Amino acid sequence: MTDKSSPTAAVLLIGDEILSGRTRDINLQQIATYLAPLGIPVRESRTVPDIEDEIVEAVNQLRAKYTYVFTTGGIGPTHDDITADAIAKAFGVGISEHPEVTAMLAERYAAMGTEYTPARRRMARIPHGASVVANPVSGAPGFQTGNVFTLAGVPQVARAMLEDIGPRLETGAVVHKITIRGTGLREGDIAEPLGQLAKEMPQVSFGSYPWFRTVGDNGVHLVASTLHEELIEEVAAKLSAIIEQTGVRPERLEDANT
Amino acid sequence: MTDKSSPTAAVLLIGDEILSGRTRDINLQQIATYLAPLGIPVRESRTVPDIEDEIVEAVNQLRAKYTYVFTTGGIGPTHDDITADAIAKAFGVGISEHPEVTAMLAERYAAMGTEYTPARRRMARIPHGASVVANPVSGAPGFQTGNVFTLAGVPQVARAMLEDIGPRLETGAVVHKITIRGTGLREGDIAEPLGQLAKEMPQVSFGSYPWFRTVGDNGVHLVASTLHEELIEEVAAKLSAIIEQTGVRPERLEDANT
Repeated sequence: MTDKSSPTAAVLLIGDEILSGRTRDINLQQIATYLAPLGIPVRESRTVPDIEDEIVEAVNQLRAKYTYVFTTGGIGPTHDDITADAIAKAFGVGISEHPEVTAMLAERYAAMGTEYTPARRRMARIPHGASVVANPVSGAPGFQTGNVFTLAGVPQVARAMLEDIGPRLETGAVVHKITIRGTGLREGDIAEPLGQLAKEMPQVSFGSYPWFRTVGDNGVHLVASTLHEELIEEVAAKLSAIIEQTGVRPERLEDANT
Repeated sequence: MTDKSSPTAAVLLIGDEILSGRTRDINLQQIATYLAPLGIPVRESRTVPDIEDEIVEAVNQLRAKYTYVFTTGGIGPTHDDITADAIAKAFGVGISEHPEVTAMLAERYAAMGTEYTPARRRMARIPHGASVVANPVSGAPGFQTGNVFTLAGVPQVARAMLEDIGPRLETGAVVHKITIRGTGLREGDIAEPLGQLAKEMPQVSFGSYPWFRTVGDNGVHLVASTLHEELIEEVAAKLSAIIEQTGVRPERLEDANT
């Protein structure tokens, strides 16, 4: 779907709360939708617990395989926030309070009339050689270590940090997408012509995504993705025709470039 | 948090639509919350695209490391549904139409007055040696290959399949949990006593999960997990005391064993 030379990304979600089911992650989705218009597809995601060795192993596997890695979670002030140490370990570098960060946090807490405690100072610790990622929401920054960006787990903070990261990224060819919905459509009714179309148009990637909530609230979304914007209208017409052949009315959806 | 001998699980989400951000996954959460009362913690999750080699590699890594692996997605009738073939390849076994499954699907489609097409027959293909996982929602089954359970991606179908899998699982010691909420609480205000409590009670795992929607709608959930149910009330009292020291009123939440 993209050239070999195009940048790629992986997302590493860090936190027991996601694996336990306590929290339903939304950071993968928001990182993917932020990167898509930059032409940087997310190729893999992992979720690991708050265990240093697991984080280190995942970081090292992913940073070797993808252009960029985005981690979320584990950079707060409490004892279970171990991501910064794990990133330092993965890169084989030391970690200590960053002078500018700790000065910024000290000033911020002074302005709030809040004590700058040892726990809060932990949030100024970043791996040696890392650069800071600004956090306009709550102050304590993320950081960039090589090709690994370490973000907060709180979605509003992670989202804000992406804005500071975007300009640092090498962009790739943007994938153009179209989605055609068939309410009441069954995948089995369109699988053969869809598979045939996928063979005829190797420059386009076709996906079929059924939904089923209750009887009557079910159907299929057909999604086509391509680097070739000039093919989009032709593909839309062909997908619509495939759906119409079954007697279902195709609906073209507005696609937010995801 | 659990004994070395306790069963563990990994969840492998298969599908371009999750990585692109088109779909926000909910299967990890529903699998984790189904398994928690059985004493089977999810220790890792991965999301990979609809690429056979990526699926094979992830399946083989995860099935070697965890007691059980649950995959979701890619078992429908369309050309992009390649999970069954990938599982067969991962296990080094053949794959073909399962006689009982294809008879069941033929009967089901006949009853609906729907043609049992080659595309629909694909859904009867399961790896040799695998056993069937019933799908009471839409017919086409999942399957179990060794310690790997392959489920549908549609959440309602995946959830129903878990019911057929539950009785097959070796259960472990159940983790007991408690959550205390502090609205308006800041992690920096409780990090030191919380870290101290975590050191004092090594049989209990403590997590601190801040939320931040807007100013005023923010705070922290403190979560304690332990195999020792008899410690829960003591832990609840200690966490509440830690929150109260900051001037915030602690609220104990009902925990759904997650």
